[in-house]
Amino acid sequence: MIEKLAIIGVGLIGGSVAMALREEGVVKEVVGCGRRKKNLEKACALGVIDHFTHDVAEAVKGADMVLLSVPLGAMRDTLQAMRGRLSDDAVVTDAGSVKGSVVEDVKAVYRGMPGFFVPGHPIAGTERSGVEAAFAELYRNRRVILTPLPETNEDAVDRVDRMWRQCGAEVTQMSVEHHDEVLAATSHLPHMLAFTLVDSLARMKENDEIFRFAAGGFRDFTRIASSNPVMWRDICIANQQPLSGMLTRFADELHELAAILERGDGERLLAIFERAQHARDRYVDGVRD
Amino acid sequence: MIEKLAIIGVGLIGGSVAMALREEGVVKEVVGCGRRKKNLEKACALGVIDHFTHDVAEAVKGADMVLLSVPLGAMRDTLQAMRGRLSDDAVVTDAGSVKGSVVEDVKAVYRGMPGFFVPGHPIAGTERSGVEAAFAELYRNRRVILTPLPETNEDAVDRVDRMWRQCGAEVTQMSVEHHDEVLAATSHLPHMLAFTLVDSLARMKENDEIFRFAAGGFRDFTRIASSNPVMWRDICIANQQPLSGMLTRFADELHELAAILERGDGERLLAIFERAQHARDRYVDGVRD
Repeated sequence: MIEKLAIIGVGLIGGSVAMALREEGVVKEVVGCGRRKKNLEKACALGVIDHFTHDVAEAVKGADMVLLSVPLGAMRDTLQAMRGRLSDDAVVTDAGSVKGSVVEDVKAVYRGMPGFFVPGHPIAGTERSGVEAAFAELYRNRRVILTPLPETNEDAVDRVDRMWRQCGAEVTQMSVEHHDEVLAATSHLPHMLAFTLVDSLARMKENDEIFRFAAGGFRDFTRIASSNPVMWRDICIANQQPLSGMLTRFADELHELAAILERGDGERLLAIFERAQHARDRYVDGVRD
Repeated sequence: MIEKLAIIGVGLIGGSVAMALREEGVVKEVVGCGRRKKNLEKACALGVIDHFTHDVAEAVKGADMVLLSVPLGAMRDTLQAMRGRLSDDAVVTDAGSVKGSVVEDVKAVYRGMPGFFVPGHPIAGTERSGVEAAFAELYRNRRVILTPLPETNEDAVDRVDRMWRQCGAEVTQMSVEHHDEVLAATSHLPHMLAFTLVDSLARMKENDEIFRFAAGGFRDFTRIASSNPVMWRDICIANQQPLSGMLTRFADELHELAAILERGDGERLLAIFERAQHARDRYVDGVRD
């Protein structure tokens, strides 16, 4: 049982955790912390949190579980505001999409990695954001990745692990570096492609017409380009190295594809498309043959 | 009223046209033509066609409307088989995703552009194919582009236009060249990105793990990578020039994005993401501000 849960940053991610834990009856008190009063009042009205404060130090006072669900760009200031205010049995975790930058922020603020901090990342979300988009089932059957360091307390990892399982998630552990590479490939790169494609078409002449003739596939393909631009700027900057490597590699593959096309090599094209179709059906749709 | 409709290639596209026109009660007889007997028997059993033949010349005999819904790679042979067998009031149209290559095929077979041929392209479809995926509503509120040439009869255009409207589609006309550029941007390029991304991830070590941590956004983004590889090879080869130009341009933009990321230019990233989000919400989701 969590006695007091402090959600720092009450949006889709933090709000959904609170709702899931409440529904399971495994949390006694939830305090929300954020900047915008209207948003926090809405979170209270929706029953997501019990009360709120704008003061991080106040929010974490007496909390045995603290979830930092603020944008990556606000992580360091939040940690700074929290420092020295935690109760001695508190466990802190975060929900940032990049783990290297969060660990860096924690180390900078605490001058080393404290045992109570468990870096985490729920692989869930929609292109919508804000507490009004939160729902208790968001994490059901979704994966959460924890990236504990050698310094991290085992008990702290267990408590964060249990919290996510209570939200319905499957929890996996991996290294910080591996997490950031896997996510660069499966999430950050696709978002960059969708943003760049839509921006590129929008800059064409007659862009209104271009979009008018886009079919259903385009709508699905570009859905992620409706995601929050500020959040994605933060993610890109935070995962700069793995992501820029991935982008460069992918751009080279597209140049190669253009060359294949130029020389009319249908066999080679077919091989690529067949491998892709097979992999998607097998791994993404779960149709195993 | 269409007296006799010949569908050459009875799959998702051709099958759905037949079903829509039957539902509207605007076609008397539908003959299907294709290679695979099993598929054609299924089309009969589903009530999509009245009877079938494997012989194109036989199928078009006495037909006043002929729809060529065969893969682009089979277009020329189909035209060859049809040549000299049409009745004198017949109108022929096609559903190919690239119009330049179809016009080339027609000109090669007929040694010039015959007035009865109206090149067309319904912007509809799913990643599934085959007559069992066909349904009467496929074209409802979808766009169909016709690309008549100066040689095309006005009456032929009117009849094809009417047929598509009876399927529930909105019909637009544009030039062959413009069609192929617009589709390269909104359809062919996105498909190339999805195929290449999935293939690229599948070739990574531990690809099983990579896909395991893909979130919902990835599923949507890569849905089009489940499309028919042979069909897409044909489309790419048929639209070689516009598409390879588009691919090269897009690869250059990704290199540029990697450079922006390398130098940590968050402002520039934010500007791109905001423009993209705005354009998608405005043009694709139709949220106008």
